[in-house]
Amino acid sequence: MVELPAGTPPRRADARRNISAIVEAATRCLAEDPGVSMSAIATAAGVGRMTLYGHFESRSALVAVVVEHALDRAEAELSAVDVTGDPYDAMTRLLDASWTVTFRNGGLVQAADQALSPDLLERAHTQLVDRAKSVLRRGRSEGRFRKDMPLDWQVTAVQSLLHGAATAVHQGALTAARAPGLVTTSALALLAVPPAPSSGP
Amino acid sequence: MVELPAGTPPRRADARRNISAIVEAATRCLAEDPGVSMSAIATAAGVGRMTLYGHFESRSALVAVVVEHALDRAEAELSAVDVTGDPYDAMTRLLDASWTVTFRNGGLVQAADQALSPDLLERAHTQLVDRAKSVLRRGRSEGRFRKDMPLDWQVTAVQSLLHGAATAVHQGALTAARAPGLVTTSALALLAVPPAPSSGP
Repeated sequence: MVELPAGTPPRRADARRNISAIVEAATRCLAEDPGVSMSAIATAAGVGRMTLYGHFESRSALVAVVVEHALDRAEAELSAVDVTGDPYDAMTRLLDASWTVTFRNGGLVQAADQALSPDLLERAHTQLVDRAKSVLRRGRSEGRFRKDMPLDWQVTAVQSLLHGAATAVHQGALTAARAPGLVTTSALALLAVPPAPSSGP
Repeated sequence: MVELPAGTPPRRADARRNISAIVEAATRCLAEDPGVSMSAIATAAGVGRMTLYGHFESRSALVAVVVEHALDRAEAELSAVDVTGDPYDAMTRLLDASWTVTFRNGGLVQAADQALSPDLLERAHTQLVDRAKSVLRRGRSEGRFRKDMPLDWQVTAVQSLLHGAATAVHQGALTAARAPGLVTTSALALLAVPPAPSSGP
């Protein structure tokens, strides 16, 4: 359910329901196909094109609202992740939540790239990255994650695995059930301190 | 130097030089900016727009030739990689060569996505993936690479790291000198058989 500002007059209940239905339908449609048309979104939302354009004057206005809504939801979900305790376990929980966000938003990121303000893009990037960085920093200082690679690369590598897995699922090359476990196992293998080379006799 | 069919009449030497210059300039320009204009390509190649359109009737015709040329070159480079011997070393050599190909082609892949026939896309995909799969298969059967993940995921994961690193370099977040080493270290960490959990006393 999309939240509207408190105090919106009650006689606008229909409008609120329509906006909510449009944003939710647009989120689903854009995640599947970043190039989806306004007509297809109207159909998926069960409203007419006139109603759709009455609420959102352009496709990019709608995409901006959808992305802002998706970011709010992602922020709420990622903030709820417990990143304390063992860095491995913290990273595993964070990767699970990040997978959910990445996979759900799929094509949204692509749609957003074309329609999004630099501010929103920056915000999308920062919120996802900062949390991962803090867990990585702690894991590195506690000797749980390797330090022979730049922190930024570790973030890039983990993000690349998340995006690669999401794309593979969307293409049908990997199941959505299998993906998060593979991402987590792979990311932790990549981050782990490598075993010391066995010393000679 | 772009190879033209043998037997092209010698009096067409100018045309051959122009085509060669256009394809080479277009490769560089498209790798940097997949949306580059035909005018910019003509300028980079040192030919006029009339000459450019005399040889390539449309942008997509030029992109197709550029991609085919890039694929030939990539195939030649990847075929030259020695994939025998220790699977770790073989994978390291293959990743180095794959990095060179991935990074050089950069935006070309994006430009190609919009202008490329499914046949060429399939060929681009297959040639890069098959070689990696055969090294992975051997490494798995020899107990050097982990087998608790699907082979296809391992290919996806390694490709994701290559593409993530190439994007980071193009965005200035990582140096081109540093990237291939990080990709290789990360990919091998991800593929390595994990150390057995230490048994109790």
